[in-house]
Amino acid sequence: MPNPSRSDVIKPEVRGLSAYTLQHFDAGVKLDQNENPYELPTDLKREVAERVLRRPWARYPEFVPAAIIQTLAKFTGWPGEGILVGNGSNELIQASLTVTLGPGRKLAVPQPTFTLYKLMARALQAEVDEILLDAERLTFDVDKLLEASRTSEVVVVSTPNNPTGNLFDRDALVALLKNAKGLVLVDEAYHEFSGQTAFSLLPEHRNLVVLRTFSKAMAMAGLRFGYMMAHPEIAREVYKWKLPYNVNIFTLTAAELVTERRSLLNQAIADIIRERDRVFDELQKRASVRAFPSKANFILMKTARPAHRLFDALYSQGVLVRDVSSYPLLDRCLRVSIGTPEENDRFLVALDQALENKNGST
Amino acid sequence: MPNPSRSDVIKPEVRGLSAYTLQHFDAGVKLDQNENPYELPTDLKREVAERVLRRPWARYPEFVPAAIIQTLAKFTGWPGEGILVGNGSNELIQASLTVTLGPGRKLAVPQPTFTLYKLMARALQAEVDEILLDAERLTFDVDKLLEASRTSEVVVVSTPNNPTGNLFDRDALVALLKNAKGLVLVDEAYHEFSGQTAFSLLPEHRNLVVLRTFSKAMAMAGLRFGYMMAHPEIAREVYKWKLPYNVNIFTLTAAELVTERRSLLNQAIADIIRERDRVFDELQKRASVRAFPSKANFILMKTARPAHRLFDALYSQGVLVRDVSSYPLLDRCLRVSIGTPEENDRFLVALDQALENKNGST
Repeated sequence: MPNPSRSDVIKPEVRGLSAYTLQHFDAGVKLDQNENPYELPTDLKREVAERVLRRPWARYPEFVPAAIIQTLAKFTGWPGEGILVGNGSNELIQASLTVTLGPGRKLAVPQPTFTLYKLMARALQAEVDEILLDAERLTFDVDKLLEASRTSEVVVVSTPNNPTGNLFDRDALVALLKNAKGLVLVDEAYHEFSGQTAFSLLPEHRNLVVLRTFSKAMAMAGLRFGYMMAHPEIAREVYKWKLPYNVNIFTLTAAELVTERRSLLNQAIADIIRERDRVFDELQKRASVRAFPSKANFILMKTARPAHRLFDALYSQGVLVRDVSSYPLLDRCLRVSIGTPEENDRFLVALDQALENKNGST
Repeated sequence: MPNPSRSDVIKPEVRGLSAYTLQHFDAGVKLDQNENPYELPTDLKREVAERVLRRPWARYPEFVPAAIIQTLAKFTGWPGEGILVGNGSNELIQASLTVTLGPGRKLAVPQPTFTLYKLMARALQAEVDEILLDAERLTFDVDKLLEASRTSEVVVVSTPNNPTGNLFDRDALVALLKNAKGLVLVDEAYHEFSGQTAFSLLPEHRNLVVLRTFSKAMAMAGLRFGYMMAHPEIAREVYKWKLPYNVNIFTLTAAELVTERRSLLNQAIADIIRERDRVFDELQKRASVRAFPSKANFILMKTARPAHRLFDALYSQGVLVRDVSSYPLLDRCLRVSIGTPEENDRFLVALDQALENKNGST
């Protein structure tokens, strides 16, 4: 290669980033990505496929996907002018941050939380003000977040928070919305398991952006769909970074049908919530495990063992969980998604085996 | 709404942007988006649907889509470590620009060209150095582009260029790669219709990024797929802005099958090229029309009539083309995509009607 390397043309803030990665593991019991363990009904999937087969694939999707926006407007009660759809909610997080952040601008974000917010802000050369959760209980430090919000273009709150499972208090959110200098992004990826949403605050707070995904309760992680609700004035600006034709015709079709028939998912969601509470109670019974209360479809747990050893001990028994011990404050912590009752039982049995047999299969 | 508007938290460069938009028109002969007029074979589409029905939808796609990357590596001959796949090539354009551009950094771009490059660079608060094409022939101004490339973090060249259809000369590209301070993005959205690609320059030029889409020749605009080839060192950095799980399982499955059976598309591509040359010859015969030579699947044409009037006159006859007269240098220009022979005939008849009958249906 005669040319000198040109990688120095990459922004230094990007060069300094470690990419978001996830190592691939195969396992019989997959409890590592907070997916819905229940598939959509086969009839519904077939209907999606049949509808897509009747559409031309060589033609672009509609420039404005009016049908899904109308369906979501009807489903949520929020006007379509304030709704954007994305290739997963990640795209809308990215767009919201890109239109607001740059050098000299700041993101305030609790830590630990979902990794992408910080990575994206850094790539945009923005400052990141990380507000640690309470080190013992892993609850939000509302006072510090309020303070940071006064000088930040964006605050992001994931509620229930990933990977801790706790909710951001509603009164605290109202205070945040009133105090914040800029946008408050509320990532409701897991809201269906919590019974709480910031939705009703939208009409009164023009700086509120609510993000939703179809990757968790909605059982469509493989199809990539999310949406955002905000004041139309904000949606119009975030729109400018969203890619044109960002959602393909297959996912649009599936999202429409699944939203229209949302009640088909109610049983699965209720089952997951019941199982989450059962697994939590089971974990509470184990003296060597500390489980953190969760309103999501996963539970964060801490044991005396190094997380990678416990991870290995579970994995050797066919149970895949997420090692989150490299997050701030989460030393010796694992996150386990809620699966079917059988999967959860297999996890609990494997956990007991792993904790009893400390010098076992690892 | 008691809150003041917070739209001032949006970056001024974004607030100042007009969003990329496209007005929706229904028409019997749709020649406005440079799509492939021929659908993929029905058997292949059915096979994609059947494969996707056998996969779990509630599970995320693989973190690294190894199968499609391997398929593309085999198809192109470029190593997988230097290939990224995207939700359309637009996502990879966006990612390439984001990891390189910010305040104090510059994009050099010929004008007129595909609109998104400039919009994205502006949203990233970068400077944009627009190098006008030759006003008369609409060819690239290579000297000025070379000069701009010496002080630009990124140069983007669309070849064949949209909406003019002309190629960027290969020797000029080599000079650009040698002179450029930073990355040279070569957008080959239409390369299959041109018989030219920058591919063979990749091994010798670490600053070359080649972008490809499945939305044109590959007949998958509705599914959203594109890929990028570059030195692995560059791919690794661009990867950091690409969304995780950015391509859904349906599109991944389709892209794999279509790449493996690429020869199924050869006839359609040959037909489009032949038709492009026929339509060009036909346009040449018309004294009141100037057609610009094209190596893409569209033709840029100029007439004495205001573009919006000619557009309306064609549309009233059921033929939809693109009014590109608001682009720099393209006063009174329309862009017409190449359709099936029947569609092209309908366009030519409608054009004659419109040009003869200047005070007609509009």
